[in-house]
Amino acid sequence: MRNNSVKVFAPASIGNVSCGFDVLGLAVQAPGDEVLLSLNNSKEVTIKEIIGDEGRLPLEANKNTAGVAVIEYLKSIGVNQGVEITLYKNLPLGSGMGSSAASGVAAVVAINHLMGALLKREELLPFAIEAERIACGSAHADNAAPSLLGGLILVRQNHPLDIVTIPTPKELVCVLVHPQIEVKTKDARSVLKATITLKDGITQWANTAALVAGMMKEDYELIGRSLVDVVAEPLRADLIPGFRKVKEVAIQNGALGCGISGSGPSIFCLCRGVENAKRAGDTIQQEFNAMNLNSEIYISEVNRKGAYVVK
Amino acid sequence: MRNNSVKVFAPASIGNVSCGFDVLGLAVQAPGDEVLLSLNNSKEVTIKEIIGDEGRLPLEANKNTAGVAVIEYLKSIGVNQGVEITLYKNLPLGSGMGSSAASGVAAVVAINHLMGALLKREELLPFAIEAERIACGSAHADNAAPSLLGGLILVRQNHPLDIVTIPTPKELVCVLVHPQIEVKTKDARSVLKATITLKDGITQWANTAALVAGMMKEDYELIGRSLVDVVAEPLRADLIPGFRKVKEVAIQNGALGCGISGSGPSIFCLCRGVENAKRAGDTIQQEFNAMNLNSEIYISEVNRKGAYVVK
Repeated sequence: MRNNSVKVFAPASIGNVSCGFDVLGLAVQAPGDEVLLSLNNSKEVTIKEIIGDEGRLPLEANKNTAGVAVIEYLKSIGVNQGVEITLYKNLPLGSGMGSSAASGVAAVVAINHLMGALLKREELLPFAIEAERIACGSAHADNAAPSLLGGLILVRQNHPLDIVTIPTPKELVCVLVHPQIEVKTKDARSVLKATITLKDGITQWANTAALVAGMMKEDYELIGRSLVDVVAEPLRADLIPGFRKVKEVAIQNGALGCGISGSGPSIFCLCRGVENAKRAGDTIQQEFNAMNLNSEIYISEVNRKGAYVVK
Repeated sequence: MRNNSVKVFAPASIGNVSCGFDVLGLAVQAPGDEVLLSLNNSKEVTIKEIIGDEGRLPLEANKNTAGVAVIEYLKSIGVNQGVEITLYKNLPLGSGMGSSAASGVAAVVAINHLMGALLKREELLPFAIEAERIACGSAHADNAAPSLLGGLILVRQNHPLDIVTIPTPKELVCVLVHPQIEVKTKDARSVLKATITLKDGITQWANTAALVAGMMKEDYELIGRSLVDVVAEPLRADLIPGFRKVKEVAIQNGALGCGISGSGPSIFCLCRGVENAKRAGDTIQQEFNAMNLNSEIYISEVNRKGAYVVK
């Protein structure tokens, strides 16, 4: 007998990874969103409940990434199926950790599971991206792809979609620190300029290429030297209180590199080994504490499997 | 007894490799320049003869890349040594094949050999770069580094110098086609703009990162898809008669990708296997023939050892 209910976890992801603005995303083990999906005899996709969003997300299925992902999936396979969604919104909104992508990814993995895995994992990506586009107004794959597939993902091209999985070295550990302020993606976008200097462009593609090489060569020092963003970070740094100081002390205390996760305000570090990651994370938290800013720390290895069905 | 004379070959190189504008360079097996260096009892570095340049290069040692490379090397090790240089200028000038870099590289490898290999191979790079700066006015490492060290080189940063060797797949074959026109590096630089759109920047670093990934994953299709330059090529294409057509037919006839080598007018293709390379090269030459433009073709594997002493 086919199950008519499943719970799926989809992880947060570090968008951009400094130099890889709009093209790189890295999945972490935790935190992440969970979606509980149940089939029913109606013909409608509905959201039963959202837990953890403090009532801020829309309960209309066609305005919520989880709902849209399911609707688009069912439309694509031509099935008119009643579905009830419960969303456990563990990821803070507007945190820069790929929160909306994770909800959509969890939902589409769940519905595909209940439909007997009609589509392959990578075939689910367009639905998660479309969900982000409809629910959030932007259709980037740089959070959805790592949350779905795991690992470090390079989005070479959005239309048609061309993504590349970049192997990451074994001892790489991710630190995410979320200070309790909110940066709206819209605001983080609006500080960007429509043009950049050719010189900065050259620096950016040198570092992006070097970061990929560093990952594949397992050269931690090179990874550290390449985690430089001359395009978005200088413009977004002022949106996060104390960012420059936080970055400086993190690198002095165990981080190979440090930057803004997605459009912020979360800050990420990549470190070699858990000890360095703990040291870097603690240092950042102390720095925020000194500014009377509470923060949460998440330390984990790279998530190499992406979203998964919770047993 | 130490030899007091040596001949060194330094290969041509494909600068930029499409998306890697100003940061990537790829060494080929042939063609290349040769430098014959002889020690003597004078205290001067002199150029005895240049063969193959039709009298166009300066014979003053301090104005010639080969001469400057030797002068800077000797200055650095603090030796006042008489040296006589003969330069076999096999590479056409202003061809986009890293001609001036090859002369400087051959010269500095030769003098280091005669000085008993005082410095390691990679330590010679600053002299070759300095020679390019003094003799040609620009100090980029993207031709000198591959000519010296071999392979595909990523110049992550010029100051201080940070270069990364990118492994290349076994069956990769390079085609260089040099049409008999000259494009001055200065002219090729002057068509560039000081700013680019952020959108084009994102496309460029997505492709540069993907090209590195394609090389290291030995994914020939990905290499082909990533050989896209939206920054320099659209502006430089008009400097080369028929470039767009030539590129189109090359890709239809065996090339994974095709672009302008350095600042042109030479055109390069990367291909999988020699047969494809021959087909692409022939197609390009026929296309140039149809425009009454003579051209020379060079087909070779990637040069993975760089400059070498000729036995």
